[in-house]
Amino acid sequence: MFETDLIRRLNIQFPIIQAPMAGGPATSKLIAEVSNAGGLGSLGAAYLTPETLRSTIQEIRQLTKQPFGVNLFVPEDATESQATIEKMTAYLNKYRTELGIKENPSINIATESFEEQVQVLIEEKVPVVSFTFGIPSKEVIQALKNQGTLVIGTATIVEEAKQLESAGVDAIVAQGSEAGGHRGTFLSNKADSLIGTMALVPQIVDQVSIPVIASGGIMDGRGLVASLTLGASAVQMGTAFLASVESGAHRVYKLTILSANEDSTAITRAYSGKAARGIQTTFMQEMDQYAGAIPAFPIQNAMTRDIRQAAAKTNNPEYMSLWAGQGLRLATDHSAGAIVKQTMSQAHALLGNMLKLKDKSEEIL
Amino acid sequence: MFETDLIRRLNIQFPIIQAPMAGGPATSKLIAEVSNAGGLGSLGAAYLTPETLRSTIQEIRQLTKQPFGVNLFVPEDATESQATIEKMTAYLNKYRTELGIKENPSINIATESFEEQVQVLIEEKVPVVSFTFGIPSKEVIQALKNQGTLVIGTATIVEEAKQLESAGVDAIVAQGSEAGGHRGTFLSNKADSLIGTMALVPQIVDQVSIPVIASGGIMDGRGLVASLTLGASAVQMGTAFLASVESGAHRVYKLTILSANEDSTAITRAYSGKAARGIQTTFMQEMDQYAGAIPAFPIQNAMTRDIRQAAAKTNNPEYMSLWAGQGLRLATDHSAGAIVKQTMSQAHALLGNMLKLKDKSEEIL
Repeated sequence: MFETDLIRRLNIQFPIIQAPMAGGPATSKLIAEVSNAGGLGSLGAAYLTPETLRSTIQEIRQLTKQPFGVNLFVPEDATESQATIEKMTAYLNKYRTELGIKENPSINIATESFEEQVQVLIEEKVPVVSFTFGIPSKEVIQALKNQGTLVIGTATIVEEAKQLESAGVDAIVAQGSEAGGHRGTFLSNKADSLIGTMALVPQIVDQVSIPVIASGGIMDGRGLVASLTLGASAVQMGTAFLASVESGAHRVYKLTILSANEDSTAITRAYSGKAARGIQTTFMQEMDQYAGAIPAFPIQNAMTRDIRQAAAKTNNPEYMSLWAGQGLRLATDHSAGAIVKQTMSQAHALLGNMLKLKDKSEEIL
Repeated sequence: MFETDLIRRLNIQFPIIQAPMAGGPATSKLIAEVSNAGGLGSLGAAYLTPETLRSTIQEIRQLTKQPFGVNLFVPEDATESQATIEKMTAYLNKYRTELGIKENPSINIATESFEEQVQVLIEEKVPVVSFTFGIPSKEVIQALKNQGTLVIGTATIVEEAKQLESAGVDAIVAQGSEAGGHRGTFLSNKADSLIGTMALVPQIVDQVSIPVIASGGIMDGRGLVASLTLGASAVQMGTAFLASVESGAHRVYKLTILSANEDSTAITRAYSGKAARGIQTTFMQEMDQYAGAIPAFPIQNAMTRDIRQAAAKTNNPEYMSLWAGQGLRLATDHSAGAIVKQTMSQAHALLGNMLKLKDKSEEIL
């Protein structure tokens, strides 16, 4: 359990990876706290400039001597007609008026340069790099592996896992439908598959020969041992850390997490243009009624940024993106290190019970 | 593992319940085979007349001396406007023409009498009775319990589980989003919740004091041990038995199951008016484009019956309801008894590995 091949290669103590959670929650403090506790902290760097990415990596290294990971989004070209963009701009103005911010803002849809981000990760010799939304080029994967970086891909169906393995990644995150935040799905016709973790993990494990990391609805020692039982070599937990002391999530976001239930979330494209699971908000519900087409990611993400930021400033959760998974009732406000330790001791106790069960099973089988 | 309180009360050997699967798959042979192998076979009796229900129970008793279960649907009143029904009738005629059956058939939407079905279960002293789509009256639950019947309810969110416990059921099936067939959801505004098994089971276990039965995506010993780890006292498996030797599923249905993948299913109201998970078909895809409102269950179920039956006669899976869960790659055509035994020996072997893991964990924690 604590010595799977993957854990040895990650050079960490416990099979717990903190989900990257781009956009705020995964602070250097959170990442270092998880890594110092024996897990693997991860930085969601998709929205960071190469400069900020580099300085954050150096900041993390000042807080921990342990390994950590960095996650990037594989870029996709998105174009939308002027009409689609103008219609959405007009629709969004209603929220801008309400929030007292400028209407028809000039939207900068330019994203950070993936190549420059990768270059920083290579130069900084980051121990673990994971990718979401696709398969990086064999050159990128090879360049990272050549210097000893462990490369992880994200799959939501078996076929994505197979393609990632062929591309040469070292391990695969199997993202179940329970997971919070953006769906990693990159085979475009499969966006609605939403395979639950219980079904997804064993089917991917059977179809690839590299280690699988279970994610989606895993909140404590029960989810950890269950995932290892399904054949996973480790788990990735995000929602479990969202309201932790070291999380950078907005105070209102944390309070919402701690009061939400398993059925408080929904899948939406309202905020970013890409399917993601978050706590249901007025913004999501109203966008469900939107007559036009929602611009693709990252365009819609850029178009709603000023609204999300203004909502955060005024502590208004209804217009903020409150990414979260379906394990919400099990979220706590403990420190991230305590969450890692509690998860491991619960897992340890469960193994003790399993032992008793085995003795009983001897009598029967 | 094999001696949870629930298993003792069910008086069975292994914590494996075969899902009722109303409408064909759960034959007396399948039920008896599962019960004789040490699990609990279950009859999906929702669509059976009181007479057929009684004779089927007697048939099962001739095939096994072991306990078995019977599942009923808690009835709901559904009414639809003449316009809605006429529009759907006209739409469905296109399939009737193609299948060469009579257009505008007179639809009998009358369902079997729930009271009479319950009366039969009481008279026949059925060991286990489970309910789906709601909470039976306290009188019905008490009448069954008074004669020693173990009563099980079905929940898809925590709140449904709490209400079932208050009503007095003995145990709860926690139906995760991976599950095939009809969603048991009965709190009407929660139909889209679709909580994955990994997230649902521990959250329900924490909120009720009665035993929980995990269902949804559980296909083998890995899913069984994982579910027990999450706090379940047993599992309910349906898709795992659908293509088994003793299953009454149509030959074409079985072949489709054995060739389908984890992402072959979708949630649809096309066949019955109630949300259910099945392998994607032309009928489902075309109904997604249907302009009008789909009549509620059981009206739509009655309106599509002649089409499903004609499709089955002509071995046309595209117009049949192919209910199935997301664990499809793990389905086999073995005998149901072998599936129970294979699941248990795999579970037993997994416990052996857990034991090794525990020894390792000793060194660390």
